[in-house]
Amino acid sequence: MEDVKVLIDRVEKLIELDAVAELHEFINDSNISDIAELINEMPEHTLRFFNQLDFQRALAVFRILDINIQEELLKSLSSHQLVQLLNDMPPDDRTAMLSELPSHIVKDIIKQLNPEERKITLSLLGYPEESVGRLMTPDYIDVEPDWTVAQVLTYIRDYGKSSETIDVIYVTDEHGMLLDDIRIRDFLLVNPDSTYVKDLMDGRFISLHVNDDQNEVANVFQMNNRVALPVVDDRNVLIGIVTIDDVLWVVEEEHTEDIQKMGGTEALDEPYLEIPLLKLIKKRAGWLIVLFIGEMLTATAMAYFQDELSKALVLALFVPLIISSGGNTGSQASTLIIQAMALGEITVSDWWNVMRREILSGLILGSLLGFIGFIRVVFWNMIFHSYGLHTISIAYTVAFSLLGVVLWGTITGSMFPMILKKLGADPAVSSAPFVATMVDVTGLVIYFSVALLFLKGILL
Amino acid sequence: MEDVKVLIDRVEKLIELDAVAELHEFINDSNISDIAELINEMPEHTLRFFNQLDFQRALAVFRILDINIQEELLKSLSSHQLVQLLNDMPPDDRTAMLSELPSHIVKDIIKQLNPEERKITLSLLGYPEESVGRLMTPDYIDVEPDWTVAQVLTYIRDYGKSSETIDVIYVTDEHGMLLDDIRIRDFLLVNPDSTYVKDLMDGRFISLHVNDDQNEVANVFQMNNRVALPVVDDRNVLIGIVTIDDVLWVVEEEHTEDIQKMGGTEALDEPYLEIPLLKLIKKRAGWLIVLFIGEMLTATAMAYFQDELSKALVLALFVPLIISSGGNTGSQASTLIIQAMALGEITVSDWWNVMRREILSGLILGSLLGFIGFIRVVFWNMIFHSYGLHTISIAYTVAFSLLGVVLWGTITGSMFPMILKKLGADPAVSSAPFVATMVDVTGLVIYFSVALLFLKGILL
Repeated sequence: MEDVKVLIDRVEKLIELDAVAELHEFINDSNISDIAELINEMPEHTLRFFNQLDFQRALAVFRILDINIQEELLKSLSSHQLVQLLNDMPPDDRTAMLSELPSHIVKDIIKQLNPEERKITLSLLGYPEESVGRLMTPDYIDVEPDWTVAQVLTYIRDYGKSSETIDVIYVTDEHGMLLDDIRIRDFLLVNPDSTYVKDLMDGRFISLHVNDDQNEVANVFQMNNRVALPVVDDRNVLIGIVTIDDVLWVVEEEHTEDIQKMGGTEALDEPYLEIPLLKLIKKRAGWLIVLFIGEMLTATAMAYFQDELSKALVLALFVPLIISSGGNTGSQASTLIIQAMALGEITVSDWWNVMRREILSGLILGSLLGFIGFIRVVFWNMIFHSYGLHTISIAYTVAFSLLGVVLWGTITGSMFPMILKKLGADPAVSSAPFVATMVDVTGLVIYFSVALLFLKGILL
Repeated sequence: MEDVKVLIDRVEKLIELDAVAELHEFINDSNISDIAELINEMPEHTLRFFNQLDFQRALAVFRILDINIQEELLKSLSSHQLVQLLNDMPPDDRTAMLSELPSHIVKDIIKQLNPEERKITLSLLGYPEESVGRLMTPDYIDVEPDWTVAQVLTYIRDYGKSSETIDVIYVTDEHGMLLDDIRIRDFLLVNPDSTYVKDLMDGRFISLHVNDDQNEVANVFQMNNRVALPVVDDRNVLIGIVTIDDVLWVVEEEHTEDIQKMGGTEALDEPYLEIPLLKLIKKRAGWLIVLFIGEMLTATAMAYFQDELSKALVLALFVPLIISSGGNTGSQASTLIIQAMALGEITVSDWWNVMRREILSGLILGSLLGFIGFIRVVFWNMIFHSYGLHTISIAYTVAFSLLGVVLWGTITGSMFPMILKKLGADPAVSSAPFVATMVDVTGLVIYFSVALLFLKGILL
């Protein structure tokens, strides 16, 4: 791929010189990803670039532009151009685009479509969001078992242009029921005149249901090594196909949502720099306030132990250290478990296996941190004489509290996402910060209880 | 996809009845993903299942098995079977498998390969880990510009069987330099006898360099809508292709690593339930200890303000609330920024744009939490008379401290990943918990400084 800077410099010079012919040639020799990059960098010249492209390439570029540039472009097109653009878009991309645009624009756009395209679009939009139905295209090639391969090849030559992919050909019966899928290579590797479609069929195919969840689909592609999968309805009638390139987009989007949820934000659904500031703040405020109200319990817990604090102020010094250790361990454990569940490595029924591992991990990690904490207290006292006579008791308090909160952190952190899952909720939703908050409050209780144990009669 | 439980029940019954013929038929009618599922659930019957499969299907199943089952299976195979299995695997999958196995096993395996396969494997393994070279397969079809399409189709019929994909055909010159890529559909849609390869060429192709980073590749596939991309060396000579199904695996793996890193663990590289417990603990301990040592600074900071604490013990009550609010805001901001950088929505050069948005977000979110905090203090005092005469001053202290730490959290959280990136480090590595720790310590300083401002002469 060429360096974008070089491209931009070159194009800027051509525009400056008003070198129309050279610009045309240059744009036509560039890859669609480079042209999209150019438009993203120089949005003021969008129409100029588009006018250089033949229609198929313009479409390809349009599909990968940022959604807000797409929107701008749609507004700037004449209604005639718009109709052509929309009618010629593959139905799956048109649906994907429409689901991201505001609904009043969608309404206007659908009005412009020709009746046939409007029917297809409305039907795709009729499937639930995030369903396979929204991802599929009805442009595929299907053939019948008693055709010869030569007939299939002629058929492809005649009807292949409008289909999204001819890498896989589908076999259906007279009622449109899906019987098999056959890769195009299989047709090319046999004698076309003496071989029938049914000779190539093995009856083994994977199909998706139109109401399946999009996020499950990536897994099916991975496991079965396909570039396209057929989509069927309840009666097993073939109604569309999903291609692997669309699945890559779904996977990336899902990834972003997961990460944002785990960081305690609602999914932004828009690029960071482009989302209006107030919307950005609104997406963040919700969880922050929930967590804040949760954390208020720490003030209540601290107030409950006010007596102990006033007798042994030294206890206050380690409060942040102890609760943050619990929080860190907890969010680490919840991240591991959420991800393992997402990958299907563990299910809710493995809870006891997970719990056992986390108890052992918590004991060892807690002992480790407790040991370091113990050393810290003793060592500081040797240098600064910070904690006076009762240093060792304080050191024990800190060490065993750490063991306690770390153990509690691993258990809560691992079990909370599994409980969410069991209850049918999405375990990724803010599990990590939520666990941290929960562990903070209980961490205080653990800390002051351990303190009572070790310092009763000494400081307390 | 069929329910796995149903499959298992059926297979168990067949095994129990020792119904060899039915088992054979059943296995041969199942999809490879279902067979892999069966083996994962009933590993003791692995060999029994494999013996039912013809070689191509056995291979397909093998490729998607868990790595530890693959290892078991390799050990249980006779050396003759092993050689056949390995020699017939596509080179990219063989390389992917070998890079996950322990090195002593890899050595044994490579010895078993026939000289030609050994050469290919060693050469693929010679490219850096995570490079495109490790992902590619040398099994592709390349043709020359002055061939007719009929010649191409005959060539495919003769040599297509061993190639990984024939969905895309590559055009090279007499020195093997890549000239173009052409989708198989373009060959099928023209008259084969009167059309030459050069008539179909448009000179626009995207190629990958053998040393490119695997993680960049997904983006190239997405943006250019390809199912396979050619790989070239420094002299632009075609040396292999990468297919989109392998890219899906890379994306999923990368996704898992990102999430684990953000949760403060090293990437596990093994399924959660299968990684040895000590290894799991080791992967987690490193960061926990680093963070713990960082958090020790909070004890130092608290000790520094011990005087203030002893005069106004009430200040201790809000320490957890205030530092956790800073931590939550900080990890939220860092998650958003890391993800936006990963998606290429923002780069380091946007830092001022980001900073401006985060300052505004921080001011508004901080005012919000500060307001709630203020209400909490005043309200509690009305009910429980908790804070005595100076309630309003304490409420102001809490409110303005919250504003301060939240603002500081958004700034640190957003800038820290960008600084890491600028320094050439991976911003995902534990940014979120690291930011939380950093914000905790400075949060204390902010809190006690604000307290001095509002409570000087009253409580302090």
